[in-house]
Amino acid sequence: MLVNGKHYRTIWLNKNDEKIVSIIDQTKLPHSFETLDLRTVEDFRCAIKDMTVRGAGLIGATAGYGMYIAALEAKNENFDDDIKKSGEILAATRPTAKNLSWAVERQIKKICDNNLSCDEKRKIAKAEAEAIANEDAEFCRKIGENGLEIIREISKKKNGKTVNILTHCNAGWLAFTDYGSALSPIYAAKNAGIDIHVWVDETRPRNQGASLTAWELGQEKVAHHLIADNCGGHLMQHGLVDMAIVGADRVSLGGDAANKIGTYLKALAAKDNNVPFYVAFPSSTFDFEIFDGVKEIPIEERGSEEVRIMSGKNKDGKVCEVQICPDSTPAKNWGFDVTPARLITKLITERGVFEPSKEAILKIYPI
Amino acid sequence: MLVNGKHYRTIWLNKNDEKIVSIIDQTKLPHSFETLDLRTVEDFRCAIKDMTVRGAGLIGATAGYGMYIAALEAKNENFDDDIKKSGEILAATRPTAKNLSWAVERQIKKICDNNLSCDEKRKIAKAEAEAIANEDAEFCRKIGENGLEIIREISKKKNGKTVNILTHCNAGWLAFTDYGSALSPIYAAKNAGIDIHVWVDETRPRNQGASLTAWELGQEKVAHHLIADNCGGHLMQHGLVDMAIVGADRVSLGGDAANKIGTYLKALAAKDNNVPFYVAFPSSTFDFEIFDGVKEIPIEERGSEEVRIMSGKNKDGKVCEVQICPDSTPAKNWGFDVTPARLITKLITERGVFEPSKEAILKIYPI
Repeated sequence: MLVNGKHYRTIWLNKNDEKIVSIIDQTKLPHSFETLDLRTVEDFRCAIKDMTVRGAGLIGATAGYGMYIAALEAKNENFDDDIKKSGEILAATRPTAKNLSWAVERQIKKICDNNLSCDEKRKIAKAEAEAIANEDAEFCRKIGENGLEIIREISKKKNGKTVNILTHCNAGWLAFTDYGSALSPIYAAKNAGIDIHVWVDETRPRNQGASLTAWELGQEKVAHHLIADNCGGHLMQHGLVDMAIVGADRVSLGGDAANKIGTYLKALAAKDNNVPFYVAFPSSTFDFEIFDGVKEIPIEERGSEEVRIMSGKNKDGKVCEVQICPDSTPAKNWGFDVTPARLITKLITERGVFEPSKEAILKIYPI
Repeated sequence: MLVNGKHYRTIWLNKNDEKIVSIIDQTKLPHSFETLDLRTVEDFRCAIKDMTVRGAGLIGATAGYGMYIAALEAKNENFDDDIKKSGEILAATRPTAKNLSWAVERQIKKICDNNLSCDEKRKIAKAEAEAIANEDAEFCRKIGENGLEIIREISKKKNGKTVNILTHCNAGWLAFTDYGSALSPIYAAKNAGIDIHVWVDETRPRNQGASLTAWELGQEKVAHHLIADNCGGHLMQHGLVDMAIVGADRVSLGGDAANKIGTYLKALAAKDNNVPFYVAFPSSTFDFEIFDGVKEIPIEERGSEEVRIMSGKNKDGKVCEVQICPDSTPAKNWGFDVTPARLITKLITERGVFEPSKEAILKIYPI
């Protein structure tokens, strides 16, 4: 998608040296657009852990490239074991995102336990990393096409009046290789000339809505307003939201969706006000081994400083951190919550739009 | 309540000069404890408008004292008209809080349209301001007694294990003259030796939870953790909340409660997880002229900078502001939402604990 009018992906092989993987440093957004080079598995571990890259699809794509770098690092005499160790290190960085372990396992299956030479394995790892990234972009593009029809229908019902769409966190192109999941239908609708407006949840802590979604939408010139996370219920009560669409970090076979904390609250408000609530994600986000998402999806607990400290641009234009509570105040910080299937209108993947139920999921994804 | 071990109210007549009203400057908390002197109606208007004082009861008490200062300012030849003009100015500062117009009207009824001399009217205005403030404190103390029984019951059911209580915004003593509404039962439970722990919603925008509730609870040594506003649903899904208790800025005859934006979302989550949800407030918060709170309670829209800009303490210990979104991002900022009665377990006032229904309300408040 566009950054100052120029097309970017969130992650790419460095053109001058294909032993380097470049990323957008998302911790610097929205105040500064900077790219960063990753050269070692340790670089990748830190980038995922510290959320220099974040978002379901991008975590998967980064893990895919990380496994390619792991293949470059692996010693010939101990190749498969080295690869698997690197895979364990990467998979342990973020417990909730399914795409992470999915990408690591996909690479291990391709690279390890075969009779190929180490150099051949390295070539395969590179090709597979590129394939994972390309597939992610292509799947997101299709999610956009599938979701577009929903927005088009609402627009028709409203006789072309502005369709107001609420989203939580960032499930835009910054959360994937390109296009995004929840924002992909929004970009498709914009391109199709449909009159849309997006309510952007600030998304505390870490403010991915304020810092990433607002930035993306601004770059793509999509009409939007930033709101506090507390605001969505009031908007829905007063008919100011026509649909809600969010991404997901893991979706169970029962159709329950783990996503950034606070998503569940918006889904409750949507249900209470008959606002349709959609969850958009590529298939790699499915965890078919889990049925009850609320009980079984592991929820990451992150550092309390993310709640106590806010980052932003001060009056001198410099990015700085401020503490918003008393020195002695302790905080707790869970990164995700799970929205039960009963609150979700439809799931949107690259394969289509369908009910959040085991029956519907198995029909589209026969195991 | 206590500030560094010393007892304070939030507003008081200056001991050295009773033509001055002193307040705690709540915009400076939690990083600095400062008091401020109000000498003119314009000082009062700014203090309420800019939220130097805030919270349902304290807005009412401030309006009460403001009307006393208005009586000092009023010219003898045009006394009643001057008073009423000042009343209009004060009443227009914050549209949602019922206590504001309630206190203004109460003063006007006492002061105006009688045959007393201007000096007698000024004396009455002073006495009435003190009466409003004292009544607020006394009502809040009783709310504490009434709410304590609810916490005691839960503690018994849990065999003395920690009672986890979630609260949103600040309805502590800082929001009233003393004690608070939602926090008053919590302080009473602490004093009664019940093992309690409070989940403090950060409460964006303006962060009254992070800056005021966390500060109050710390000063009173009540166990607590600060959480993002997005977090409460997840906690309730996992059995980590035994009850929720919030304040209110206006409560309708039907039992609907306007409170800081985001309250409705927590009430939905409480309902969805069978967590009892209480709204605590003194009678002055009732608006018996309104039945359907969602449709009829006016909701204040505040400046967008409150969403775009965060205030906190930087690494040098100085309070500064940071912008959390791109320069060009527009924001919207409603201050309150309305929680329908159907989501509220019980209302708690100085008169008791009762159902949020017209029948129950009229039984306790026969009009």
